[in-house]
Amino acid sequence: MEIRIERAKTLKPKPDQNHLGFGKYYTDHMFEIDWDKDQGGWHDARIIPYAPLQIDPATMVLHYAQETFEGLKAYRNPQGEVQLFRPEMNARRMQNSNKRLCMPYLSEEDFVEAVSKLVEVEQDWIPTAPETSLYIRPFMFASEPGVGVHPAVSYKFIIILTPVGNYYPEGVAPVKIWIEDEYVRAVKGGTGFTKCGGNYAGSLKAQEKAEEHGYTQVLWLDGNEKKYVEEVGSMNIMFLINDTVVTAPTEGTVLPGVTRDSMLTILRDWGYNVEERKLPVTELMEAARTGALKEAWGTGTAAVISPVGELYFKGEECVINDFKTGPLTQKLYDTLTGIQWGRLPDKFGWIKVLK
Amino acid sequence: MEIRIERAKTLKPKPDQNHLGFGKYYTDHMFEIDWDKDQGGWHDARIIPYAPLQIDPATMVLHYAQETFEGLKAYRNPQGEVQLFRPEMNARRMQNSNKRLCMPYLSEEDFVEAVSKLVEVEQDWIPTAPETSLYIRPFMFASEPGVGVHPAVSYKFIIILTPVGNYYPEGVAPVKIWIEDEYVRAVKGGTGFTKCGGNYAGSLKAQEKAEEHGYTQVLWLDGNEKKYVEEVGSMNIMFLINDTVVTAPTEGTVLPGVTRDSMLTILRDWGYNVEERKLPVTELMEAARTGALKEAWGTGTAAVISPVGELYFKGEECVINDFKTGPLTQKLYDTLTGIQWGRLPDKFGWIKVLK
Repeated sequence: MEIRIERAKTLKPKPDQNHLGFGKYYTDHMFEIDWDKDQGGWHDARIIPYAPLQIDPATMVLHYAQETFEGLKAYRNPQGEVQLFRPEMNARRMQNSNKRLCMPYLSEEDFVEAVSKLVEVEQDWIPTAPETSLYIRPFMFASEPGVGVHPAVSYKFIIILTPVGNYYPEGVAPVKIWIEDEYVRAVKGGTGFTKCGGNYAGSLKAQEKAEEHGYTQVLWLDGNEKKYVEEVGSMNIMFLINDTVVTAPTEGTVLPGVTRDSMLTILRDWGYNVEERKLPVTELMEAARTGALKEAWGTGTAAVISPVGELYFKGEECVINDFKTGPLTQKLYDTLTGIQWGRLPDKFGWIKVLK
Repeated sequence: MEIRIERAKTLKPKPDQNHLGFGKYYTDHMFEIDWDKDQGGWHDARIIPYAPLQIDPATMVLHYAQETFEGLKAYRNPQGEVQLFRPEMNARRMQNSNKRLCMPYLSEEDFVEAVSKLVEVEQDWIPTAPETSLYIRPFMFASEPGVGVHPAVSYKFIIILTPVGNYYPEGVAPVKIWIEDEYVRAVKGGTGFTKCGGNYAGSLKAQEKAEEHGYTQVLWLDGNEKKYVEEVGSMNIMFLINDTVVTAPTEGTVLPGVTRDSMLTILRDWGYNVEERKLPVTELMEAARTGALKEAWGTGTAAVISPVGELYFKGEECVINDFKTGPLTQKLYDTLTGIQWGRLPDKFGWIKVLK
């Protein structure tokens, strides 16, 4: 892919690395490429100064939400090099999202090249303080103006970058989880396995409800029977029940998380028994009640890991592991972040060091 | 509501009324109002020249699809006056959409006033040729920049206008319908009853599949059991089975259509037995097979009515009424469009004539 680079005339001041927040600052440049049906597809790949987009009010993304996104991070390793974590996984997932939404998509090679090139241009923005990284947000949307409902004939794929600290200002600490039995995130035959905007807009209401009841996140049940555990907030979720790790299978309604896949790989490497299966919420609550549920944690790129300290379901509250981060949760966090930041050997071949 | 008006310096040429299409031309002005949490809510209502929006690439609507819309029309009646059809219904539905999406909303009064004022300013754009009208598209979206998932703290509500002809270039003519048993539009606890963008993006794939098989529209089944008939494409659907009109109830998964409600009111006024009930697809196909299914039609603001000439389900094709527009379908179309364009008396008090 030919990428034209137009450098910003003035650069923004870099923010204080100790108060980055999550998504408060954006870098000096962005990657942009257009897809037009009548121009034979993708054209005009470019890295340009970060600037507002000019969008016609009739642009379809504002009406029919034909839009998908990804999230990954660039890390500064102890040798001072810049590295990405499994970017090809994001490329492939975005392809699957886009297919479901009837959108064209970049090849795996072009996706990774676009991410890599933009990160290289912006490498001075990669923070070095502990737990900090450069969050990478590729996204794509229908750019055709029109009020008829149909797959658009033009799209924009854009990548923006934001230096981030911990997703949760309080760091890795157990959270209280509300198991939701009214609102639904995903259903078989729907878009649950994709990172499309609609999934996130639809999830806000239950999140608001959980917060009103004093809970931090929502645990979603399957949309068909409201019986099986699926995801937590916008993360996957895993449970250590006795000495087995249980997590929902990615069968169309659950997002195939890169962090999820990586943790399952690490767990299997450690010899853990891992079950990807439909876990009934009744079985989960029974395990929590009896103490068979030793640990529970959410997994995602933004937060990496989010320990679960308490579950609420239909009037019952169960505390997990005395509301403390469990040893396996901590070990997984240390191991995965160790690999991601280059402090531990890359034994699974997940790291792509940029030139 | 105080609305500031800034007139366009030059006006666009008006398009040929015989080739308007649907959404090809936009008028000279648009309505815009902002909502900011830290500014106490709604502020700065204005009618300004139609122009591109300046949108930061991190704007949440492009990532998490927190967006809703409405659709209604302005008509030129035989006396030359401008009239709207039940705009308060759209105002109320948008309130319900926005509540589900955790978005603020305009009062019914402000919504109708905004629509009315903009249409008044643009009344020269209302076409007069038969079957033409001015399509009104109110929409609202999260305008806060950010990559964290939460209800935005700022929004834009905008109204744009486009003069339109028939939604289907071929006019009112029977279409072939594919009953979809794989992809799902809505599920209980989801967003099916709202006009949020995500519903439409998620529906494109099944529509594409139907077209690949030579069908024009998708008939959706319920997302929980894939057993009951819900909507067709982005319209409601009604069936005349023997002498009873059957349509799906609006119980959270089905959009409460203004055209749907109006047609049911007219049908009841005519003395028809109307059943809003869960109709099993097996019962529907059996009725189609035996000829008990006399007519079927989709209803929506854009197309008004779309007769169904054929149903396909799991390998079986059933033609309805010899693939002709049925007498009740035609009578409903004539009556409703008669009221909307002011050719028939407004016996239900649905018309709002603008000054």
